[in-house]
Amino acid sequence: MIERIAILGTGLLGTSVGLALRAAGFSGSIVGWNRGAEGAQVALDAGAIDSIAADPLEAACASQVTVLGVPIYATLDFMEKLADVLGGDHLVTDVGSTKGQISEAGTRLFNRRDRAAFLPGHPMAGKERGGAALGDAELFRGAVWLFTDHPGWQRSAQSAALAQSWRELVVAMGSKTIDIDAERHDELVGRVSHLPQFVATALSALLEDEVGDAPELKDVGGRALREMTRLGASPFSMWRDIAYTNTEAIEAALYALEQRLAHLRENLKTPGLRDEFEKANRFRRE
Amino acid sequence: MIERIAILGTGLLGTSVGLALRAAGFSGSIVGWNRGAEGAQVALDAGAIDSIAADPLEAACASQVTVLGVPIYATLDFMEKLADVLGGDHLVTDVGSTKGQISEAGTRLFNRRDRAAFLPGHPMAGKERGGAALGDAELFRGAVWLFTDHPGWQRSAQSAALAQSWRELVVAMGSKTIDIDAERHDELVGRVSHLPQFVATALSALLEDEVGDAPELKDVGGRALREMTRLGASPFSMWRDIAYTNTEAIEAALYALEQRLAHLRENLKTPGLRDEFEKANRFRRE
Repeated sequence: MIERIAILGTGLLGTSVGLALRAAGFSGSIVGWNRGAEGAQVALDAGAIDSIAADPLEAACASQVTVLGVPIYATLDFMEKLADVLGGDHLVTDVGSTKGQISEAGTRLFNRRDRAAFLPGHPMAGKERGGAALGDAELFRGAVWLFTDHPGWQRSAQSAALAQSWRELVVAMGSKTIDIDAERHDELVGRVSHLPQFVATALSALLEDEVGDAPELKDVGGRALREMTRLGASPFSMWRDIAYTNTEAIEAALYALEQRLAHLRENLKTPGLRDEFEKANRFRRE
Repeated sequence: MIERIAILGTGLLGTSVGLALRAAGFSGSIVGWNRGAEGAQVALDAGAIDSIAADPLEAACASQVTVLGVPIYATLDFMEKLADVLGGDHLVTDVGSTKGQISEAGTRLFNRRDRAAFLPGHPMAGKERGGAALGDAELFRGAVWLFTDHPGWQRSAQSAALAQSWRELVVAMGSKTIDIDAERHDELVGRVSHLPQFVATALSALLEDEVGDAPELKDVGGRALREMTRLGASPFSMWRDIAYTNTEAIEAALYALEQRLAHLRENLKTPGLRDEFEKANRFRRE
């Protein structure tokens, strides 16, 4: 029932959505727009989109479903603009990593009978580097795709049906969907997603200061070090918005880990070390 | 020139050494001993060793090279015992993760003209789980194998030649050797190897407390979380000895990371965040 999709922002995620939709058998049209012309061209050449739109709002108006594949603040900007031009026969959805402010905007600007529906989404998939060239039809396979839909939102029958169809396409792309409250979402991803990123950044920055000028010493760490610092390559441009829009949860998670590291440090020669290793083993039990 | 090797301790590393020696074309004899009979049998069945020794000291005496594949304190115990029974025509080497105490024992007990040579070694390779069953002929390929040989040590011509031959076998197993001072070794691996382990343990233990009872929430973290907590499965039995024998360097590394995380936490909304991401990006530049 969805036949026309607009992807605004053909970076890693937007391009991967286009490729995954095609791989899942979606045969409708996919129009793409990107702030930088090169990213749109790469997405087009890869087959993630059929055509490049000159104007993102016109592309959204001409589609049934608009997928926002841009950073958080750009998503919030688009939401303001799209709410004015889209009617109740449209669905807008996003892939942003924090959901508090986006869901609040979803209540304020969308999800009334005469307005477009907004379905806040967050695929738990990505790479440490961005860009259309890394787009991957398999990126979402086996991943969780979170939605912070709100039970109080009112939608037209048409936009509600589009939201249901979009959920089905997400499953067709290989993801498992989970619905979660927006506030709980931000707390949870603060711990299981943002915390690992900030730890990798801190570890990488620390080691850059200490052994960055001795490449042969980096090799010493081997696979374990490579893995624990892979996310150190993640771009500030994306994480800035996440740090700004999930500050409290990230602060709490970082503080909790600082305490935990201090506890380990103070117990390197006590039975407390065994307790921490055994608890960590339980987290990784198969 | 090396024709008879004894591997004392056929866990993950000992078994992998046997398999890698065979893969590199070593055609001499390899006798194995393990504290638990099952591990020795698994190593034998895998072809990592040719025969199982009933007595580790007898096996060492009957070999030219003895490889200690046991935890640090067990290594130190074996060094005491082997120093009494081996002569100047023997080489003992190890694979332990800290080198300060082992190198000190190497000076005290070995490396005189009438004694066996001891060459302290540390392959920077491993897995998050141990045991002979995970032994892997390719484990050392592309890895760095550190030696903390000491320029002041005196060796018989025979044992010096065995040490040189062992270095050549390590290269044949696919590793790159680096010589480093024992004290510098422990500081360095405290940062690039032990710190990543303790961070993964702390992160895994923290998340076990917070989401351990909700397996569906673990999936949310995706690949990044799996990677950042893989080492959480590492066994305390191995890391206990490392924590005891490299306490100072690990304390310093943990404290430095705690400070770094606090700095990130206090700068989530300042330009300081960009500086840390850019520094981390430099650590991961290709």
